[in-house]
Amino acid sequence: MRGRVKNILFIMCDQLRWDYLSCYGHPTLATPHIDGLAARGVRFTRAYVQSPICGPSRMSFYTGRYMQSHGSNWNGIPLKVGELTMGDYLRPLGVATVLVGKTHMAADREGMSRLGIDPTSIIGVRVSECGFDPYERDDGLHARGPDGGYDGHQPRYNQYLNAKGYPGDNPWHDFANAAQGEGNALASGWAMRNARKPARVEEEDSETPYMTRRAMEFIDESGQKPWCLHLSYIKPHWPYIAPAPYNDMYSAAEVIAPVRSESERVDPHPVFREFMTHRVSHAFARDEVRHEVVPVYMGLIKQIDDQMGALFRFLEQRGLFDNTLVVFTSDHGDYLGDHWLGEKEFFHEPSVKIPLIIYDPDADATRGSVCDELVEAIDLAPTFLDALGADPADQSHRLEGRSLMPLLRGRAAPAWRPYTISEYDYSIQPAAADLGVAPRDARLFMIADKRWKLIHAVGFRPMLFDLVNDPRELRDLGTDPACEPERARLSAALAQWGLRLSQRQTRSEQQIVAMRGKAERRGILIGVWDENDIPAELWSGYLGGAK
Amino acid sequence: MRGRVKNILFIMCDQLRWDYLSCYGHPTLATPHIDGLAARGVRFTRAYVQSPICGPSRMSFYTGRYMQSHGSNWNGIPLKVGELTMGDYLRPLGVATVLVGKTHMAADREGMSRLGIDPTSIIGVRVSECGFDPYERDDGLHARGPDGGYDGHQPRYNQYLNAKGYPGDNPWHDFANAAQGEGNALASGWAMRNARKPARVEEEDSETPYMTRRAMEFIDESGQKPWCLHLSYIKPHWPYIAPAPYNDMYSAAEVIAPVRSESERVDPHPVFREFMTHRVSHAFARDEVRHEVVPVYMGLIKQIDDQMGALFRFLEQRGLFDNTLVVFTSDHGDYLGDHWLGEKEFFHEPSVKIPLIIYDPDADATRGSVCDELVEAIDLAPTFLDALGADPADQSHRLEGRSLMPLLRGRAAPAWRPYTISEYDYSIQPAAADLGVAPRDARLFMIADKRWKLIHAVGFRPMLFDLVNDPRELRDLGTDPACEPERARLSAALAQWGLRLSQRQTRSEQQIVAMRGKAERRGILIGVWDENDIPAELWSGYLGGAK
Repeated sequence: MRGRVKNILFIMCDQLRWDYLSCYGHPTLATPHIDGLAARGVRFTRAYVQSPICGPSRMSFYTGRYMQSHGSNWNGIPLKVGELTMGDYLRPLGVATVLVGKTHMAADREGMSRLGIDPTSIIGVRVSECGFDPYERDDGLHARGPDGGYDGHQPRYNQYLNAKGYPGDNPWHDFANAAQGEGNALASGWAMRNARKPARVEEEDSETPYMTRRAMEFIDESGQKPWCLHLSYIKPHWPYIAPAPYNDMYSAAEVIAPVRSESERVDPHPVFREFMTHRVSHAFARDEVRHEVVPVYMGLIKQIDDQMGALFRFLEQRGLFDNTLVVFTSDHGDYLGDHWLGEKEFFHEPSVKIPLIIYDPDADATRGSVCDELVEAIDLAPTFLDALGADPADQSHRLEGRSLMPLLRGRAAPAWRPYTISEYDYSIQPAAADLGVAPRDARLFMIADKRWKLIHAVGFRPMLFDLVNDPRELRDLGTDPACEPERARLSAALAQWGLRLSQRQTRSEQQIVAMRGKAERRGILIGVWDENDIPAELWSGYLGGAK
Repeated sequence: MRGRVKNILFIMCDQLRWDYLSCYGHPTLATPHIDGLAARGVRFTRAYVQSPICGPSRMSFYTGRYMQSHGSNWNGIPLKVGELTMGDYLRPLGVATVLVGKTHMAADREGMSRLGIDPTSIIGVRVSECGFDPYERDDGLHARGPDGGYDGHQPRYNQYLNAKGYPGDNPWHDFANAAQGEGNALASGWAMRNARKPARVEEEDSETPYMTRRAMEFIDESGQKPWCLHLSYIKPHWPYIAPAPYNDMYSAAEVIAPVRSESERVDPHPVFREFMTHRVSHAFARDEVRHEVVPVYMGLIKQIDDQMGALFRFLEQRGLFDNTLVVFTSDHGDYLGDHWLGEKEFFHEPSVKIPLIIYDPDADATRGSVCDELVEAIDLAPTFLDALGADPADQSHRLEGRSLMPLLRGRAAPAWRPYTISEYDYSIQPAAADLGVAPRDARLFMIADKRWKLIHAVGFRPMLFDLVNDPRELRDLGTDPACEPERARLSAALAQWGLRLSQRQTRSEQQIVAMRGKAERRGILIGVWDENDIPAELWSGYLGGAK
C-alpha cells in the first residue's frame, strides 16, 4: 500500500566508521544532527556492506545484489552492461533518480561498444553512472601522478573553485585538499603529517558544503516531481584534511584508543598477516599518525554533521519530512589502526559495519528506535521500491536484498535473515602476489550471524570471531578445535549461499509459476500416446491448423 | 600457435543419447559415417552437458559458462542481454559465426528495450540469436495449440515444403511430422502410437536432409572466408516420427532393454519420485511405447548418420577436412524409459552424458583415439578460440570451460578437471508445485568424478551413485552411511564451485595483474606520512600540477 513517501534522500558518506557518531556511542565526537535523524527514525546496529571497499560496496547498494552476482569486484572494474540499478527500478515508477556526488562507477565501455550503446546517449549516460542521472558527478578523487589523472572526469567542483578565486587546473588538490606549507610550498593532504593543517579553502568552499548546496539546488529545481536523490559525499575519506575550523576542532586527547592486541600479530592468518604489512597498516600502527589523522577524521565527520543540520532545516522548511524517506549511511568504515590495519578491505567491524539510519514519514511506531537485526547494503534498493508502493517481490529474481519496511514500520517481526555476507577480492593487492594466489582465487568471504563471524579465504584456513564474548574481535578462533561446530555450520551456510539462484534475471518468480503448463497449451505434447492422454482441447488445437 | 584450422563445423543433434551410436557401443544401430569421424578424430567417453534440457544446455555451449552463471535456467527463459556468446569471441578473429538450425534461444527483449537495442539491427539480431548470424534459424518445434504457436518464428522450412507441393500453413506438422491416418485423418507425430508410421514427406524433404543441404549451401556461398557454422538438427528429438525408409528400418527386436530396476521405485529420492510420475515417464515405462518409439528414434539417428555421410563427402570433395575442425555432439540425451523416466532433465547417464567427437586437421597423433577425461559442453567455446590461434586464457574471466586442444593433440597430459558439474531447474515442472518447493529453490546440481556422482537437491537429501561398481546407476547410495566420506568430499567440491568467480566479466586475469600499483602512479597515495615514504617520482607527479 502506497504511503506518504514520495521522495527518497539517500545520503552516503565515504569511509565513515559505524562508531564515529555520538548516536552510535562515540564518546568525544558529538553529531547532534545525525543523532536527531536517528531520534526521528530507526537506527540499525548491525548493518553490513557487501564488500568493504568503495566501488564493489556501492555497486551492491545500487544493484541490490551481492558482489559475486554483479561482478564489479574492485574499484575500477566496470559494472557489466545489463546489470540493473536503482534507476532502472525507480524510474518506471515516475521517480527521477539522480546523483549528486560519488558513485565510484566504472563504465563498461567495451560492453557498451559491443551492444552499440552510445555513451553520450541518455541510456549510455545512465549505464555509465549506475543508472543515475548525474546532476553532479564527482567521485572526489582528482589525484594526478606520473601516469596522469586517476579520475577521467573533470569535476564541476574545480570550475566552482576557479570561479571563487582559487586558481590552477586542479584546485581540488591545491586548495581543498592541501594546506599552506613552508614558504611557497604546498602541504598536500596526501601526506598525513599535514592532516591537521587547515585546507586552503574557506569552509563553505570545501567539498562537503558544496555538495550539500548542490543537493538543495536539485531539490528546489525539482518542484513537485518525485525524486530519489543520491547525495554521496567523498568525506571523511582520505585525503585526511579539513578546512578551518574542523582541522583542529579535536585533539589527540579526544582520540579513542585503537582496538588491537599484540596477540593478533602472533601466528596470524596468512591473508590477515599480509594486510598488516601494507604501508597504510604500518602507518596507522604509529601513535604519531593516529594522533594527527584521527582528529581530522573526526573534524570531517563533524563538518558532515553540521551540513546535515543545514540540510535537514532545508527539508523541514519545505515540508519534505512529510513525504521523504531519508537514509543516512556509509559505504564502509576505516580501520584507523584497529587490528594493526589501515584503510578497510578486511572484515573486522570497523571496516565492514556501517552506520545506517532511516527516517520514514510513515513510521510513527518506531521513531527513535534501534534495530539489531542483520541488515545489508543490498536491502536499500528493495526498501526504496517498497516505500514507493511497488512490490519488491516482483524483482526478487534480481534484487538479492530484502525490504526493510517491516523493520521500519514495526510490523509483526518477520523471520529475518540469519546470516549476513560480505566479500572482498584482494587480487589487486600486493597480498595476492606475495602469497602466490592467482587473481581468480584471491577472494575472501565473511559470513556472520549475531554471535559468530567466519572469514573464508579461498585456499587458506578460516578465521572465526565470537562477537559476544570477544566483541573487539581480538581472538581468532579459526583453528580452535572447540569451535569446529560453529565453523562447520557457518561454512555450510556459506556453501548454500554460493549455490543460490542469482542470474535468472530475465524471469521473475511469478513468471516462472505462470510458465507452468504453458508449452502444452501451445502444442508441445510430451509423452502422449494417443488422444486419450490429454484433454480434447489440447489435442484439437493444432490438428485443425489453428494459427 | 595457429595451425591449419580455418573453419569450424559445429554439428549438434538434439536429444541424441551418448550410447545410440555404434562407435559408442550400440549393438544394433550402425552409424558408420559418425564412426568414421571418430576414426579420424577423438571420441570422448565422459562428455557432460551443463544442464540436461535444450535451452539451458545450449546457452552453456554457446556462452562457455555454467547455467548458474548465465542464468537462462529453462527453455524460454531469455539469455540476459550482455552475456557473451561464441559469435562475440569468434567474430573478432574474422570468423563468420553462423547458424543453420536450432538454438532454442529466447531473446531478452526487455533487456534490449532497456538498453535501446533495436531487435532488427545487426547487433539486435545477434543478441537475439546467441551471437550467431542466422543463415537459417529453425528451432524445429512449430507446434500450435489452443493458445497459439509455441515458436514465434515462421520457419523457412515451411515455405520450402509449400514450394515442394505440401500445402497448408504448417506443413512442418501436417507433413514432416504427421503420417496418414485413417480416411482423411492425420496421424500426428505428437501421438507416440503413430511413431512407426511414415511421415508424409519424401525423405529428402524431411528436416534432417533439408538442414544438411542448407549447411552445404552456406559453405559454398562462403567461398574462402573463414566460418564457424553451427549446424544444429532438431532430430532425433520428438515428435518421434520419420519418413520412409527410416520409419521401419528397426524392429522392436533391435531395441535394447531399458536400464531400470524395481528397487529404484522403493523409497526413492523425493524429487526423483516426482519425475517418475510425469506423464512421459509413465508412458516410457510401458513396453508398448518403447517398442513403438525407440525403433523410430533409432531410424532418425540412422538418417542423421546417412546425412553425415553426404556432408562428409561434400567436405572431402572441397578439401575442407584440411582446414576445418569438425565437432559432432548433442545437447543432452533421452531416458527412453531408463530409470522409469522419459525425456531428460535428470542426471542419470542416458540424460546428462552426450556423444562428443572432434576431428582436428592438426591432430594426427590422436586419430581414432578415445579420451576418458571429464569434459563439458562449456569446453567447446574455448576450444574453438584455441583452434583458431587465440588464447582462451584471455577470456578465462568469462569462459568457464577449458580448451580441449591439449587432449585433442595429445600434448603432455595437463592436470585435468577432477569434477564435472551439471544443473537442472525444475521450477516449471509439476514436481516443484507438488513438493511445495518455491521456484527459486527448485534447483538440482550434479557433481561427478570418474567414480562417484552426487546429486544435490536444494532442501532434500542427496543422491549418490558409484559409477564403477554400479555403472547402470541402479543403487542410490545417498543415505548409505558407508558413503558419507564420498558425499562430504563431493559436497565440499560443489560448495567450492558455488563460490567461484563467475561474474567479473569486464576484466581479465591479465588486466587484474596490470591494475596492481596503477592507482598510485595516478596520484592515489594511501598511507603516506611524508615524502620519505614513496619514490620522488610519485610525490612530484601532482604537486607540480601535472596534466
